[in-house]
Amino acid sequence: MAKLYFASDYQEGAHPKIMERLMATNMEHTEGYGTDAYCESAREKIRKAVGVADAGVYFLSGGTQTNATVIASMLRSYEGVIAADTGHINVHEAGAVEYTGHRVLALPSHEGKLDAATIDRYVDTFRKDSSWDHMVYPGMVYLSQPTEYGTLYSKAELQAIRDVCLKYNMYLYVDGARLAYALACEENDVTLEDLGALTDAFYIGGTKCGALFGEAVVLPKPDVIPHFFTMIKQHGALTAKGRILGIQFETLFTDNLYLEVGTQGIRTANRLREVLHSRGYRMFFETPTNQIFIVVDNDKLQSLGEHVVYSFWEPFDEQHTVIRLATGWATTEDDVDRLAQYL
Amino acid sequence: MAKLYFASDYQEGAHPKIMERLMATNMEHTEGYGTDAYCESAREKIRKAVGVADAGVYFLSGGTQTNATVIASMLRSYEGVIAADTGHINVHEAGAVEYTGHRVLALPSHEGKLDAATIDRYVDTFRKDSSWDHMVYPGMVYLSQPTEYGTLYSKAELQAIRDVCLKYNMYLYVDGARLAYALACEENDVTLEDLGALTDAFYIGGTKCGALFGEAVVLPKPDVIPHFFTMIKQHGALTAKGRILGIQFETLFTDNLYLEVGTQGIRTANRLREVLHSRGYRMFFETPTNQIFIVVDNDKLQSLGEHVVYSFWEPFDEQHTVIRLATGWATTEDDVDRLAQYL
Amino acid sequence: MAKLYFASDYQEGAHPKIMERLMATNMEHTEGYGTDAYCESAREKIRKAVGVADAGVYFLSGGTQTNATVIASMLRSYEGVIAADTGHINVHEAGAVEYTGHRVLALPSHEGKLDAATIDRYVDTFRKDSSWDHMVYPGMVYLSQPTEYGTLYSKAELQAIRDVCLKYNMYLYVDGARLAYALACEENDVTLEDLGALTDAFYIGGTKCGALFGEAVVLPKPDVIPHFFTMIKQHGALTAKGRILGIQFETLFTDNLYLEVGTQGIRTANRLREVLHSRGYRMFFETPTNQIFIVVDNDKLQSLGEHVVYSFWEPFDEQHTVIRLATGWATTEDDVDRLAQYL
Amino acid sequence: MAKLYFASDYQEGAHPKIMERLMATNMEHTEGYGTDAYCESAREKIRKAVGVADAGVYFLSGGTQTNATVIASMLRSYEGVIAADTGHINVHEAGAVEYTGHRVLALPSHEGKLDAATIDRYVDTFRKDSSWDHMVYPGMVYLSQPTEYGTLYSKAELQAIRDVCLKYNMYLYVDGARLAYALACEENDVTLEDLGALTDAFYIGGTKCGALFGEAVVLPKPDVIPHFFTMIKQHGALTAKGRILGIQFETLFTDNLYLEVGTQGIRTANRLREVLHSRGYRMFFETPTNQIFIVVDNDKLQSLGEHVVYSFWEPFDEQHTVIRLATGWATTEDDVDRLAQYL
Repeated sequence: MAKLYFASDYQEGAHPKIMERLMATNMEHTEGYGTDAYCESAREKIRKAVGVADAGVYFLSGGTQTNATVIASMLRSYEGVIAADTGHINVHEAGAVEYTGHRVLALPSHEGKLDAATIDRYVDTFRKDSSWDHMVYPGMVYLSQPTEYGTLYSKAELQAIRDVCLKYNMYLYVDGARLAYALACEENDVTLEDLGALTDAFYIGGTKCGALFGEAVVLPKPDVIPHFFTMIKQHGALTAKGRILGIQFETLFTDNLYLEVGTQGIRTANRLREVLHSRGYRMFFETPTNQIFIVVDNDKLQSLGEHVVYSFWEPFDEQHTVIRLATGWATTEDDVDRLAQYL
Repeated sequence: MAKLYFASDYQEGAHPKIMERLMATNMEHTEGYGTDAYCESAREKIRKAVGVADAGVYFLSGGTQTNATVIASMLRSYEGVIAADTGHINVHEAGAVEYTGHRVLALPSHEGKLDAATIDRYVDTFRKDSSWDHMVYPGMVYLSQPTEYGTLYSKAELQAIRDVCLKYNMYLYVDGARLAYALACEENDVTLEDLGALTDAFYIGGTKCGALFGEAVVLPKPDVIPHFFTMIKQHGALTAKGRILGIQFETLFTDNLYLEVGTQGIRTANRLREVLHSRGYRMFFETPTNQIFIVVDNDKLQSLGEHVVYSFWEPFDEQHTVIRLATGWATTEDDVDRLAQYL
Repeated sequence: MAKLYFASDYQEGAHPKIMERLMATNMEHTEGYGTDAYCESAREKIRKAVGVADAGVYFLSGGTQTNATVIASMLRSYEGVIAADTGHINVHEAGAVEYTGHRVLALPSHEGKLDAATIDRYVDTFRKDSSWDHMVYPGMVYLSQPTEYGTLYSKAELQAIRDVCLKYNMYLYVDGARLAYALACEENDVTLEDLGALTDAFYIGGTKCGALFGEAVVLPKPDVIPHFFTMIKQHGALTAKGRILGIQFETLFTDNLYLEVGTQGIRTANRLREVLHSRGYRMFFETPTNQIFIVVDNDKLQSLGEHVVYSFWEPFDEQHTVIRLATGWATTEDDVDRLAQYL
Repeated sequence: MAKLYFASDYQEGAHPKIMERLMATNMEHTEGYGTDAYCESAREKIRKAVGVADAGVYFLSGGTQTNATVIASMLRSYEGVIAADTGHINVHEAGAVEYTGHRVLALPSHEGKLDAATIDRYVDTFRKDSSWDHMVYPGMVYLSQPTEYGTLYSKAELQAIRDVCLKYNMYLYVDGARLAYALACEENDVTLEDLGALTDAFYIGGTKCGALFGEAVVLPKPDVIPHFFTMIKQHGALTAKGRILGIQFETLFTDNLYLEVGTQGIRTANRLREVLHSRGYRMFFETPTNQIFIVVDNDKLQSLGEHVVYSFWEPFDEQHTVIRLATGWATTEDDVDRLAQYL
């Protein structure tokens, strides 16, 4: 019998509505590089959702590429980017940011999150250091919403970090690879409009939120990156058939599909959390979104692995292991019920 | 009435057979990053087509990205890459190669092509220069097949360039963005097996040859780039849902679809060439593939533009302009006939 | 008997007055990194010579380093630097500029010089290209004064190039590795004040003009490079014992020593030119500064090489070779007279 | 009255014997770029001191430049360099290593030192991580001897780290900016021969050890960096008048001058340590070399500052500050006695 897939939120194709639209438009002719009407319509819908009428909106293919391109394009060469030590750019992007010449300034985090106070202290210390001009300047703060650990920044926390950024003249950039799952989450109080108001740049994740691939970068003040189009090209991040991205994002931002995608992931994650709690599973820590981290007996792990594809996270101790179970737009209630049998 | 599109070979979605396969597999679950069975099957089919049983095959998203990633991964930092002055990496990639730290050593070309003798003379002069160790070393030759001008290298020409590469210990890398249109061309005598035998790396273009997006890099001797997977990631060129690329290339390499894609482009291009010749149009130069360059009266150009989307190429003189008409897998004989009316 | 050295202008130590000052100050204590009083005094003297009271003045160690640091610090990442195809950054710096991620946009030159009209045409064509945003932007013009071929830009020529820069919003940067020999030259009408008025950055060469090592970068408007100090450090171009550079430049700009250095080089070069002309030597082309290029019989070359160290330049034809004879601050009239015996 | 300088070991010119030699040779003619007889002689003497007959020896200008050039030249682009979090490349080089595209993998240290066990654990964890191929590979270990905190690695510690490097196929590189002060130290048991035997690269510091400027890179197996000469040039680290560096290092390695330089620094540091202990000063921690870290009352600090130039290190608590007092080859016993008056 086929295994159950709870390894990640990018293990299927695209949301059926996206596939439908790609099919329906397949033989139409359009110009390339994002200049077509689908891209323009998608940009317009995103601008509305974000509440910034003249925001810059750009479509790139993937998350690592987007992070490296945005960060390198915004920073001056003597600047680095502050990130949680657990942040994706600091761990799982193979040094893509450093490859562009910039240091990731990794700060201690808790459950994937950075505190405004930690950032403030770090920059304050930097500024008071008598050798500060021999050091990498903090020029930007990078956050993920939700974080790599499935946790969320509250609006108050985001505002506090924004204030620190303003205090020290640093950019704020938010990686929204899984943003749909944050937006659909009951605990969440950070809207797309808030991101439009509080950041200098953020991206709305497609790859992990129902698209075949693609991420939408939003620059609330587009002048923040002059000639961003050319820099995207220089980073090898410009899609020739741009309309493939435009059609996907246009679909995601029509009739609330992006929210719907997130909602399905959250609904199934909540159901799974209930099961796990009721069975007495130990949470590595509590998360409100579509990623669930549990501590499992190594013995149990093996038998679980026969039926379920999960993500190995890290060893907990000699006898236990932390694993990640992720739901997504394609996870069904039935999948969770079947998983429950093996837990 | 809708305009006719002859601007490029990437103005539609994907070949219907690809869309079919994407639809059919859409809700299947697979692991990410190219480790799934579709990618493996595509790799196997490409290895067979290339005639190298253990070739490395990697799927990336786009051409500029592929060029920069392959070139930067193969060169040592004191090396540059020789290219035709008209080569894509030297003109239309926004300095993506230089962004990775390497110089493009542009040499004079004719109709998009480099001569073995030109390369030989250049490297010979470099080696005899008393200051050669203060200069950028030529470490690789970059060719496009077909070239950016639609022309083709013959097998003898390719072999001659290969010999120069071997003589001077340089890599040979071929950009096959439009490779299907070369392979389908009657004048062509360079097969996929020849590319497998004569190059150190080449890529089989998907984006311009019927895929939604994607290029397949082939390394006949995979050890030529240690840890290429990680370098692809570092360049932001790793697709999370790798199977989207795998399914496309698996389809393109099933039942000769890749050749079929090229054949349709060539058949319609040939028909168009006939029309142009019969109407007395002046060719900028003759090409055997799917790109046709003609010299048009500026007056004529305007009226043509009302019915046809074409590519502006360059001014010819005060009264004339060079334009490019490109066919592709999605161009029909009927499109050509309708275009004929406006010519 | 010892050979005569006419290979270059960096084949001795430093001008005796510089050595004297280094000796006299050797055991004094100063703070590092250019914050000492000698550096400050040198900066002040240079500002006066340049006629810009608040110019930024920075001391770096060598020419290639200076070029790469200044160019990379001024350009945005999508920009390249226009240079003569014979320019030092395009030929003999081992790709140092590309290593920082920027393309050198090499344009045709004559006798080492770029024409304003050539630059204008190039940028105009770039701006009119329909694919300009897929291309490297010209962001700066790099000139050498004197050029690598010993020729000079006139003030009118420099002004014309400046006008093109202003027209297209590009920086103008002048490499003055051998500037002393330009300033001391009768044909020269470009003063230090002119460079202060017409460029965005230039450097006053020390290494080839009587210092042990060191170049002085002048930024007429210092804000053109924010945090240049840190960028110098990042490029590994910050000298810990900055005062060693400060003392040298302070000495060079006291009692007109910099001019004196140049004058000795020019006086001996003129004497040598006279000898060469009188002996019927063929000039590769005429130069007014301290580098002289002559076409020599290959037979003659060998016997010459027994007595004289010269620079091989390039083959002229099967029977002849172009060589460079360079004088400098350390060349004496007696050296020239002795050389005359062998010519 | 003139202040006492205890801020660093680079606050004077060069050791008088070096100045003497520079004066004596000043008007000699030599070829450039390190090809002269002085450089060759210096290389030969260093090879003998290191005990590796065919070691590669290269002279660069400064420490940051040397670190960035060596590290970037040895690593593949997917690799980073392990360093103590307090290591110079991680703190005070303005991101020079990252500027070349490589991450500094900072590990916890104690008193400036890395433990073999810490490195082993880190690499072991990396290798066992299921996502290791999405991460930066540890390709090199960077150590400083003595460390930035004046402490020393013992031969046993160095050997243990070497073993970890061999176990995981990583390079070992040692930054010897202050190496003379290690070699002259009674507690030290790591000789130049040991560095030649145990490292893949190290540099013998000149700038902080009695030279005007300059560092000598030693590659026990020179093939470890093909075409290093050109890479030095590409990094802007090649000195035109190479003989200036050659003469300095030749002098330092004649009649044990390099050891003498270190010995004077250590002798005066030891005398100062005695004074500090006898006066009851609190050591931040004990160091055996020429850098001494003490915890001083903020009140005391101000009065001290009227007579002595010291280095501010970091705040200790609200009332106390850590400062560094450094001796050097130019510090006299009399300087220490005079300083004692103010302590």
